[in-house]
Amino acid sequence: MIGERTDKFYSLYEREREKVDKRLAESLKNRKPDSLYEPGLYIIDGGGKRLRPLLVLFAARAAGGKFTDAYNASVAVELLHNFTLVHDDIMDNASKRRGRLTLHVRNDLSTAILVGDSLLSIAYEYLLRDCSGDSKEIMALFTKSLVDVCEGQSLDKDFESDESVSIDQYLEMIEKKTAALLKMCCKVGGILGGGTKKEINALANFGKNIGIAFQIQDDLLDITGEEIELGKFVGGDLVEGKKTFLFIKALEKAGGSDLKSLRNVVSNGGIKVNQIGKYKQIYFRLNVLEDARSAIKYFSGRALSSLKSLKKEEDRELFTWLANSLIKRNK
Amino acid sequence: MIGERTDKFYSLYEREREKVDKRLAESLKNRKPDSLYEPGLYIIDGGGKRLRPLLVLFAARAAGGKFTDAYNASVAVELLHNFTLVHDDIMDNASKRRGRLTLHVRNDLSTAILVGDSLLSIAYEYLLRDCSGDSKEIMALFTKSLVDVCEGQSLDKDFESDESVSIDQYLEMIEKKTAALLKMCCKVGGILGGGTKKEINALANFGKNIGIAFQIQDDLLDITGEEIELGKFVGGDLVEGKKTFLFIKALEKAGGSDLKSLRNVVSNGGIKVNQIGKYKQIYFRLNVLEDARSAIKYFSGRALSSLKSLKKEEDRELFTWLANSLIKRNK
Repeated sequence: MIGERTDKFYSLYEREREKVDKRLAESLKNRKPDSLYEPGLYIIDGGGKRLRPLLVLFAARAAGGKFTDAYNASVAVELLHNFTLVHDDIMDNASKRRGRLTLHVRNDLSTAILVGDSLLSIAYEYLLRDCSGDSKEIMALFTKSLVDVCEGQSLDKDFESDESVSIDQYLEMIEKKTAALLKMCCKVGGILGGGTKKEINALANFGKNIGIAFQIQDDLLDITGEEIELGKFVGGDLVEGKKTFLFIKALEKAGGSDLKSLRNVVSNGGIKVNQIGKYKQIYFRLNVLEDARSAIKYFSGRALSSLKSLKKEEDRELFTWLANSLIKRNK
Repeated sequence: MIGERTDKFYSLYEREREKVDKRLAESLKNRKPDSLYEPGLYIIDGGGKRLRPLLVLFAARAAGGKFTDAYNASVAVELLHNFTLVHDDIMDNASKRRGRLTLHVRNDLSTAILVGDSLLSIAYEYLLRDCSGDSKEIMALFTKSLVDVCEGQSLDKDFESDESVSIDQYLEMIEKKTAALLKMCCKVGGILGGGTKKEINALANFGKNIGIAFQIQDDLLDITGEEIELGKFVGGDLVEGKKTFLFIKALEKAGGSDLKSLRNVVSNGGIKVNQIGKYKQIYFRLNVLEDARSAIKYFSGRALSSLKSLKKEEDRELFTWLANSLIKRNK
């Protein structure tokens, strides 16, 4: 029975994901100039889980509406997400994303900046299409998540040169950088689906907590993932000197030569690629991968417990399946 | 009498400009993190004519409303404008703006990208504050101008390596890159002021045509301006290989060695600073500065003739004064 349900949800996810892909491609077609929209389409064609648009759609249904109520909003949130990816990849000097060249490497810096801006502009255009009576609330939520993403990214950069970042500060940062967008997706979907205040809040809490779990999982995958699955190279966060959950926990627990090695990452602004193995060993020694797994369990648990307010069992099961798939993912 | 009017309009402009400056600074104060909003405030503190917010306010009044109807929208359009400046300065390798270091030079590339994004996010936040019944229309106009600005900037970049750009293509580009935002300012102001369809269209036409005149004037000032007044270095467009009105006209009219010299600008993607004098001489020889002045006159004339639909003489005079000040400006 559980197997059947899982198959059913997986099929639903894949079916809707394909439709999202199609609508995303359409959102940038038949626009000029090509110099702007061809690289935009390249970014959009790169694929991805399409988690954010699917959250919008599932939330709309769980709130009593239909997927069609939120089709354009689902395009908008994925465009917003891709805008952040293009600009973040410049800031992080990333050369690969989803197994392909990043835009500033494939084209050039100017194109990447401008295409990012452009994706955001089309995102607002699409969001407005699904806004009727409650346009102001939805536009404000979308805008708030954009403000949060900028602030979160700024904190993330600040933390690179800061030795004293605590897990609390880290959580505040990823709430803005990652969880705010997922929360907004659930909330906007809930509003467009015509949900009650209680339902919308439940969905928002799910989105926020699953977003936190998702980011810690991302930090974990940077160490435990496989390059071929991730589509980017393993250990990149260490090379970039990012303050991940693993790094902060390790810094908290380490002593002696391990602590000295970790402090070197901060003072040097990262490590060399040939040092990744050494730092992996430190993480294993300090058991911080287990700490990350516990934290993921904790936040996904909080996400799941907020589902109680959803009316239909099938929606509760769908979101539960989604949460479990996310924390078991390998990319 | 005309002198008195002019003094009165100048005082009004300056008084409202100061208020705009204050509200702009407030828009970024008391926000965290400092790493994001301190450089944001630096950009905002750089001053400038504040033409766009003043257009919003004057349009609101001309449409029958009050300045206070559009205070937040006026902050929004200036934030949007500054977002484009920060990103454009990266793309243009500009080191100075308004007599001060550009953000990517003062701070770094990542900060400049992120601060630009952030200014746009706060722009939407402010715009929403002035949106009541007609929020969807205003948000759509604002978003449309953002889409246009991205497309115009992309065309501007394309044109750098294109020898065959015509004046028509140039006009299409500056309509998107510059005029779309000024048009939107007038339209949004008109809507917030409660104008009739006819009044709003008249204001939009004023904004669009004065925007085109403004950009051609900008191209002209790159050659005829003084570095100290401009706050940036003279001849920069030639150095960057930009397809300005002057350059396209010169290419159209030149023959022999002048034509060869102009073609070299395109094939080399610009000129060296010590060649600016030589190219100025070509422009003088071909009389393209006069061509630019005629074009400015033509488009500002179209702007002025659209003012007839405005009810009050004082508003017509105010916009006339504004148009004349703009085309006589030296910075």
